Amino acid sequence: MTIRKYQWSGFSLVVIVSVLLAARAAADEGMWPLNRFPAAQIQKKYRFTPSRQWLEQAQLASVRLPGCSGSIVSPSGLVMTNYHCAVSCIESLSTNDYNLLETGFYAATAAEERICPGVQINQLTAITDVTDRVAAGTKGAAGEAFAKARQAVFATIQRECGTSDDVTCEVVSLYQGGKYDLYKYRRFSDVRLVFAPEFDTAFFGGDPDNFMFPRYNLDLAFMRLYEGGAPHPANHRFAWSPAGSSPGDLVFVTGHPGTTRRQYTVAQLEFERDVRLVTDLTYYSERRGLLMEFRRRGAEQARIAAPALITVENTLKVFRGQSSALADPALLERTKADEAELRKQVAARRELEKRYGGAWDAIAKAVRGKRDPWLRAAAFNRLTASQLLGQALTLVRLPAEQAKPDADRLPEYTESALPGRRQQVTAPRPYNKEIDTVFFTHVLTHLREQLGLDDPAVKALLGRRSPEEVAASAIGGTRLDAAAVRAELMKGGAAAIAASADPLIALAKAVDPFARAARRQLEEGVDSVIDRNQELVAQARFAVFGETVYPDATFTLRVSYGTIKGWHEGARDVPPFTTLGGLYERVTGSDPFVLPKRWMERKPSVALDTPFNLSADTDIIGGNSGSPMIDRNGRIVGLVFDGNIHSIGGEYWFDETKNRTVAVDSRGIREALKSVYRADRVLAELDAP
Amino acid sequence: MTIRKYQWSGFSLVVIVSVLLAARAAADEGMWPLNRFPAAQIQKKYRFTPSRQWLEQAQLASVRLPGCSGSIVSPSGLVMTNYHCAVSCIESLSTNDYNLLETGFYAATAAEERICPGVQINQLTAITDVTDRVAAGTKGAAGEAFAKARQAVFATIQRECGTSDDVTCEVVSLYQGGKYDLYKYRRFSDVRLVFAPEFDTAFFGGDPDNFMFPRYNLDLAFMRLYEGGAPHPANHRFAWSPAGSSPGDLVFVTGHPGTTRRQYTVAQLEFERDVRLVTDLTYYSERRGLLMEFRRRGAEQARIAAPALITVENTLKVFRGQSSALADPALLERTKADEAELRKQVAARRELEKRYGGAWDAIAKAVRGKRDPWLRAAAFNRLTASQLLGQALTLVRLPAEQAKPDADRLPEYTESALPGRRQQVTAPRPYNKEIDTVFFTHVLTHLREQLGLDDPAVKALLGRRSPEEVAASAIGGTRLDAAAVRAELMKGGAAAIAASADPLIALAKAVDPFARAARRQLEEGVDSVIDRNQELVAQARFAVFGETVYPDATFTLRVSYGTIKGWHEGARDVPPFTTLGGLYERVTGSDPFVLPKRWMERKPSVALDTPFNLSADTDIIGGNSGSPMIDRNGRIVGLVFDGNIHSIGGEYWFDETKNRTVAVDSRGIREALKSVYRADRVLAELDAP
Repeated sequence: MTIRKYQWSGFSLVVIVSVLLAARAAADEGMWPLNRFPAAQIQKKYRFTPSRQWLEQAQLASVRLPGCSGSIVSPSGLVMTNYHCAVSCIESLSTNDYNLLETGFYAATAAEERICPGVQINQLTAITDVTDRVAAGTKGAAGEAFAKARQAVFATIQRECGTSDDVTCEVVSLYQGGKYDLYKYRRFSDVRLVFAPEFDTAFFGGDPDNFMFPRYNLDLAFMRLYEGGAPHPANHRFAWSPAGSSPGDLVFVTGHPGTTRRQYTVAQLEFERDVRLVTDLTYYSERRGLLMEFRRRGAEQARIAAPALITVENTLKVFRGQSSALADPALLERTKADEAELRKQVAARRELEKRYGGAWDAIAKAVRGKRDPWLRAAAFNRLTASQLLGQALTLVRLPAEQAKPDADRLPEYTESALPGRRQQVTAPRPYNKEIDTVFFTHVLTHLREQLGLDDPAVKALLGRRSPEEVAASAIGGTRLDAAAVRAELMKGGAAAIAASADPLIALAKAVDPFARAARRQLEEGVDSVIDRNQELVAQARFAVFGETVYPDATFTLRVSYGTIKGWHEGARDVPPFTTLGGLYERVTGSDPFVLPKRWMERKPSVALDTPFNLSADTDIIGGNSGSPMIDRNGRIVGLVFDGNIHSIGGEYWFDETKNRTVAVDSRGIREALKSVYRADRVLAELDAP
Repeated sequence: MTIRKYQWSGFSLVVIVSVLLAARAAADEGMWPLNRFPAAQIQKKYRFTPSRQWLEQAQLASVRLPGCSGSIVSPSGLVMTNYHCAVSCIESLSTNDYNLLETGFYAATAAEERICPGVQINQLTAITDVTDRVAAGTKGAAGEAFAKARQAVFATIQRECGTSDDVTCEVVSLYQGGKYDLYKYRRFSDVRLVFAPEFDTAFFGGDPDNFMFPRYNLDLAFMRLYEGGAPHPANHRFAWSPAGSSPGDLVFVTGHPGTTRRQYTVAQLEFERDVRLVTDLTYYSERRGLLMEFRRRGAEQARIAAPALITVENTLKVFRGQSSALADPALLERTKADEAELRKQVAARRELEKRYGGAWDAIAKAVRGKRDPWLRAAAFNRLTASQLLGQALTLVRLPAEQAKPDADRLPEYTESALPGRRQQVTAPRPYNKEIDTVFFTHVLTHLREQLGLDDPAVKALLGRRSPEEVAASAIGGTRLDAAAVRAELMKGGAAAIAASADPLIALAKAVDPFARAARRQLEEGVDSVIDRNQELVAQARFAVFGETVYPDATFTLRVSYGTIKGWHEGARDVPPFTTLGGLYERVTGSDPFVLPKRWMERKPSVALDTPFNLSADTDIIGGNSGSPMIDRNGRIVGLVFDGNIHSIGGEYWFDETKNRTVAVDSRGIREALKSVYRADRVLAELDAP
């Protein structure tokens, strides 16, 4: 209803919006790139300005894992992250007889540390502004031409940055293309598991407690960076805080938040609500149902399904939260008001109007045509829910893409991306054909549903057979589950792929042209128009408000700041700390409220008043999992692993009154390592001078 | 964008809207109650006015099944409906060794006809306008008081109508409460199965072909009405058309469309889009996933899961279609324009403004507070997805409700509803504990998710146990799967329930107070306000436009009319008939495109050019399944079983260019009965003079 008020008076509109924007900037909101650190804001509010060394440490002691974050916490390259960020490694190393999900893992000696197949960790070493180069390379281009030109510039810049097995470079589009920065990473591809608790401890409370607080999880894992077969001597690391934190303390979170959509236009938010979320909720809910029932096939299946189920339930909780955030009329009204205000300011200056005035309508028009291409491309994307088909597709595309000039390739096959791609193929990860058959059947069914029975792509994949038959025979017959077979095929290049009789390679070859065409239609036909015009909106925002805002999250390193803080849930006051005693009180003996035997037996020696989990009002989002929470001295006080339920709406806007980060308290971690796990080797490392 | 245009000129608004309304009335749109038959419209367009006898036959030869429709087609009470409307009966009569889903069913003699446990069929015998009585009984009441007063009047009217074992009466709210009619039914509780094809023939094409056309389904079943142990001698029935239909022929559909929401306000449609559909899509998608995987447990499980899976996939297709209809900006813009126009006309007349002017905002306000109560009540409602828990809840509520005055009871326990309720309890339906455990686990998990772990209702149901444990022990330990046990408990009344040690009865007792409270909060706290104000909107519509419109569907008997007609799908022309030859061409040999052996063997004797399925532009919706399609002589030309994909949006508006009814052609039915099933006894009956 706010918007109606605005219509009464042009003057009050400006005043009210400015007040809102000012208020927002004053909150502890924002995921700030290291090179755009809001030092003045922090100084003003907290009387603290980090030194150059502080910032350098924040950058170089923070690391990125696929979809997650982590921190270097010892001089021997020990990395702390979440259990759920390491779970695919833990799962890979498990068998029925040696089930690390059940027992946990602790390498009491260096020799016992175990390689995590396929895991790579990146450390950000440099940021360079390349906005001018991208602008020059895309000048005058629009639509499909713009997308191609931009991709070509990206590939060139990344190649020149010096890609090798241990360096990877990415051009990052910030502010929806308002700015471009080149991020250069040191890449570690030998990562070993050092410590992990039991699945039941890490995910205590399971899906019901996920995104909830008070909370009691030890969502923790330690891994180690290796180079040349030896532990990486880390020059930068975060030390452990001896005292931990107290309510009201200033804290920082460094990490790699994945995606926010806070700069989306109204048309884009409506697409989120009406198309993306509805489709994704449906798909993932089916997948959840499949997994809930699959694990009842037997004990082994239960073990195999557990991590996938946790992931899908987490995803669903996020999507449900996003959907309900977008169903809150206040959000959309606010975005509408902001958008109207910005457009009004643009319209008031002829130069701006000429340059940017048409951007919003252009986006709205492109969004109206996005539904069908998006649904189609999404259906093809989901095919890689079968991990083995995913491998087949990569194998088919590798030689095809490598035959092209770098600038013409799919972005994930450019020279700078190839080392990661190759490692993904050759990593000796175990594959379970039984569950992969279930997933493949599901995505084939879904594809048929989205595209229709008579679509040429569906016919090419299924012929006259059912999804069940196609999946069972292809997964049953493939040999791609053996790393050696994949490596051999990769080495053999185009000729080997052409000659292969593997049934999954055959399906990948059959579907590839359709999947590429669908992606092209979406990216070049629709998204390129949206991207181009989002750049204009971002530039308009700079022109009107200046560079006072932070860019949407992009899986690149950011710093958030705030304080240790609970919140008010209706009439109820939620305090910011829980204790290990609370964990024991929450045990029911029924899944997911079960603690392993070790925990129950050693309870007498555990200091039950030790803080265990905490909440803070730092601004985070998915991708921040595993982030260190540090104090003003740059010392670890927590390990971020979640947000509260209100943090999910953070995708679209930051509600400082309720959006909270949830972390394992550094004191709880130490107490568990000491009194429950007796992991002295890890403890000694954390205390290393 | 239409709405913006309207703002330019008050004059053009009126003109444009009137043209739209006129155009809509001219289309073959509308599900008309028998006592509001649009004779003049039909006469004007088709030069045909049905006689009194025609209408009487249409009423008395049409019947209602739970959620479905049917027609009497012989003098011995033979009822034609869809296979999918009879599938729960067919399933009940099946065992592993005698699987009617696989073999089909044909009673070659009267003695072989088999009782469908729990099935009841209603025949509408009279309609009486009771609007004035309801108005008098609710005068001056608002909110909760209104809901209670209205329910009391309903109960009185229904009781006075003469409820007995074979009579049932319902007061029906038409036009969202603008009118109230009393519907009196002859109730048949002895219904027997006469003929059904195989599951694979009835559902040929399965979920992929559902809501699609061209189509090739024999979605057909014959049942018979019995009274006093003998076939019911039917005075009214539809005869078979000897020649069938041709493109452009005028046809009528009689039946019981369930729900449309064409009179919803914008606020209500937004609630549909943002809350109901998102939640339901998620819940049913999970259920689908569970079933997809459950049937892989084995052959028996596959048989048991098949009908439930068909139902859930059908539901999901409907919800997806509704969701995408509501995501189409044109619909909401049109409703907004209509609403604005009506409000403007109301505002222009002081008397109307005073009486109705506040209704829209009152609805919008109530809808804003509906989310949480709706989610809570819906979660409790879903508990009866466990059929055995559903029985337990009925058993617990029966004595509690019967102890109250009729007017104070829950509507489904009033005197007029009790015979149906009792039959539901005592019907000797088989229950499968294995699948019911899966369903119960699922709805308990869902409830915990919606209400939160620490909700008192969740604690009352789960205690410290997991949903799996609670479901497994309660379903495992219950004896409610035996009809005799249920009958005994029902007979024993409150004392028997209080004394029962059955674990499901215990759970039903534990959850009942919470479920009732949630329902009351929704119905009396929110929906009563919406209902009351929807009445006002409906009355405002009458005051402005007169009674030229049809009421939204309410599971009561309606007639639709239109012509045999295809449509244009983009550039493609979809003709209105398919043939039996087309069915054979679509066979792939893989599920769901498999025909039973009998069909393949007898192909040489089948007349392949016989029309099989057809499309027409009559206005139908879910609940019309099993409806007869008749010609102007009141003779059967088809059996409605579906709509095309565009018909799903018919929930919210009728698109005459694309919304099509899908039916089995009467000639295809005869040819299948003759050449494939050799069901001479049924054929002879259809031809009876």
